[in-house]
Amino acid sequence: MPASNPAPSSNAPASSATLNVAIAGATGAVGQEFLRVLEQRNFPINELRLLASSRSAGKSMTFAGKDLVVRDLAEETFEGIDVALFSAGGGISKQFAQKAVDAGAIVIDNSSAFRMTPGVPLVVPEVNPEAMADIAIGSKPGIIANPNCSTIIALVAVTPIHRAAGVKRMVVSTYQAASGAGAAAMAELELQTREVLEGKPPTCEIFDRQYAFNVFSHNSDIGPEGYNTEEMKLVRETHKIWNQPEDQQTAITATCVRVPVLRAHSEAINLTLDKPLTEQQALAIFEEAPGISIIDDRDANRFPTPLDASDRDDVYVGRIRTDISQPGNTGLDIFICGDQIRKGAALNAVQIAEQLL
Amino acid sequence: MPASNPAPSSNAPASSATLNVAIAGATGAVGQEFLRVLEQRNFPINELRLLASSRSAGKSMTFAGKDLVVRDLAEETFEGIDVALFSAGGGISKQFAQKAVDAGAIVIDNSSAFRMTPGVPLVVPEVNPEAMADIAIGSKPGIIANPNCSTIIALVAVTPIHRAAGVKRMVVSTYQAASGAGAAAMAELELQTREVLEGKPPTCEIFDRQYAFNVFSHNSDIGPEGYNTEEMKLVRETHKIWNQPEDQQTAITATCVRVPVLRAHSEAINLTLDKPLTEQQALAIFEEAPGISIIDDRDANRFPTPLDASDRDDVYVGRIRTDISQPGNTGLDIFICGDQIRKGAALNAVQIAEQLL
Repeated sequence: MPASNPAPSSNAPASSATLNVAIAGATGAVGQEFLRVLEQRNFPINELRLLASSRSAGKSMTFAGKDLVVRDLAEETFEGIDVALFSAGGGISKQFAQKAVDAGAIVIDNSSAFRMTPGVPLVVPEVNPEAMADIAIGSKPGIIANPNCSTIIALVAVTPIHRAAGVKRMVVSTYQAASGAGAAAMAELELQTREVLEGKPPTCEIFDRQYAFNVFSHNSDIGPEGYNTEEMKLVRETHKIWNQPEDQQTAITATCVRVPVLRAHSEAINLTLDKPLTEQQALAIFEEAPGISIIDDRDANRFPTPLDASDRDDVYVGRIRTDISQPGNTGLDIFICGDQIRKGAALNAVQIAEQLL
Repeated sequence: MPASNPAPSSNAPASSATLNVAIAGATGAVGQEFLRVLEQRNFPINELRLLASSRSAGKSMTFAGKDLVVRDLAEETFEGIDVALFSAGGGISKQFAQKAVDAGAIVIDNSSAFRMTPGVPLVVPEVNPEAMADIAIGSKPGIIANPNCSTIIALVAVTPIHRAAGVKRMVVSTYQAASGAGAAAMAELELQTREVLEGKPPTCEIFDRQYAFNVFSHNSDIGPEGYNTEEMKLVRETHKIWNQPEDQQTAITATCVRVPVLRAHSEAINLTLDKPLTEQQALAIFEEAPGISIIDDRDANRFPTPLDASDRDDVYVGRIRTDISQPGNTGLDIFICGDQIRKGAALNAVQIAEQLL
């Protein structure tokens, strides 16, 4: 039997040194990553409360060498919680996030439920920490939305260029991993791959098609413009994070595609700039920028791959080159990779919490 | 023992009904596909002469129910050959193609050796058959170059749009299969995948890195512009095939990436058009265009995948949508898939030969 959880904290706010943290959706791919990230970063935790559906309640998970029992989210009061990290889907966030805020918590929500809600900050800490100025631990509760994984990874890389030269237009093609669809999708990709190698028909439960040795247009709904939801998130979330009024928005198009990779997304990004920027200037900007590692060795033909980025915090940037299709250094091509579960979800949320400390 | 080859033909040209065909590089991935394509299309063959390196000479291959013995390319005279299909690498083409032409043959060369040579037609039959007007079977021998796989697949899809609305600029991101690096690369991807699933380190002989469950920038040399050879082929071959003088060339940028797929390439293509074109007009153009199948079901979320295109002749086109990042229907996004070995190589070459008949 796992040891029982630490005693529930009192209603008093945690000391300035430690926080009471809840994870809603603790047993999912991102939920499990929350535990790893919080532990690795020595996040100052007083109590860690793990929450999930009643189906998962009673399970045990390990944090910092201790076994913690998962509790039923539906029965949670969020009493005494300073920060609640939500990653259990939009429906759960809509149902429980406000309850946590009403109990005095700051919710950092990994779902799409509140991202485009006016007044809810949508934050990549390297990009727009100022957006959450009206939220403070212990005194000003509220919801902060974690952007979609593809948006986070793109904007860590592109924002420093945007600040230096202004991104007028952006064409993005993604190479997205299974992890974006959850732990079960990762398992299905592995299972399908084994089956296909054995000449058996692939199991199609999470994805309704063969994913092994295949790529396919992102399996999110297609809207009236012909863009899928994943693509429109990249467009609209970028405008919100960059705080662009409607008449000054960067023009963005995206094609989001799944590739048979487990947990890191890649993106080929083509930029049209307001002001000329040389390749060397771009490289210097990436070298100075937070959250970026550069892999760009043309002689050795080494550039970022999703395996390089897997289990890493940084967004990897490479193939940095002046776009020959645009005049006078006003175009730039890059290829980037970032861990979808980590920087694309759990790490970004924890960095938001760190920013609040 | 396989039956011996048909008796060598006389020096006289084959009758108008049948041709004497040689395949240089018969045992490779594309070479094997040549045999399948010629047989499936009932190409009018009198004699089929299979040629390869001395290492493969003496092996037997089956064509139309007959076993044929592979002969040593180095000892070949090409006497009596009408059409020689070369797919044994640029070095072999440089060494032997002129010899075949001198013997009266038309060489259809799948390597990059002669693609950019002035006077050598670079042909996609759906696009620019007129480029080979100066070559005729039996009377006007010469070399015809088969474009690179990514170029062929892109131009089958994009040329009809270019004719209707003028493509001013093109941004291409590729999702390329193992087959582009040959049969051994396909085998290595399968082997690596098995190894990774078993927790073993992957065998890296063809590719010097893990390809299974990974994507990486195309493993061709990087030139002074920072573009790899594969990317520059797409740029320069397009200009040649579209017969564009230097001051009227379509602006093209490309990011070429390998994905763990066996034999069909995919490409996300963003177009900037000279003249507005609606989504509906684009769809109607694709419906009329040769060599194209459309998969574009937004409700069912069905679009082209490399598995759809594998072992198929057509280029599959989908995700046809007006680019929201460009004004007034002057931008178009598409996602296409084509069999790399087939339309990207063997089929295109055989279609060139058919065009000459």
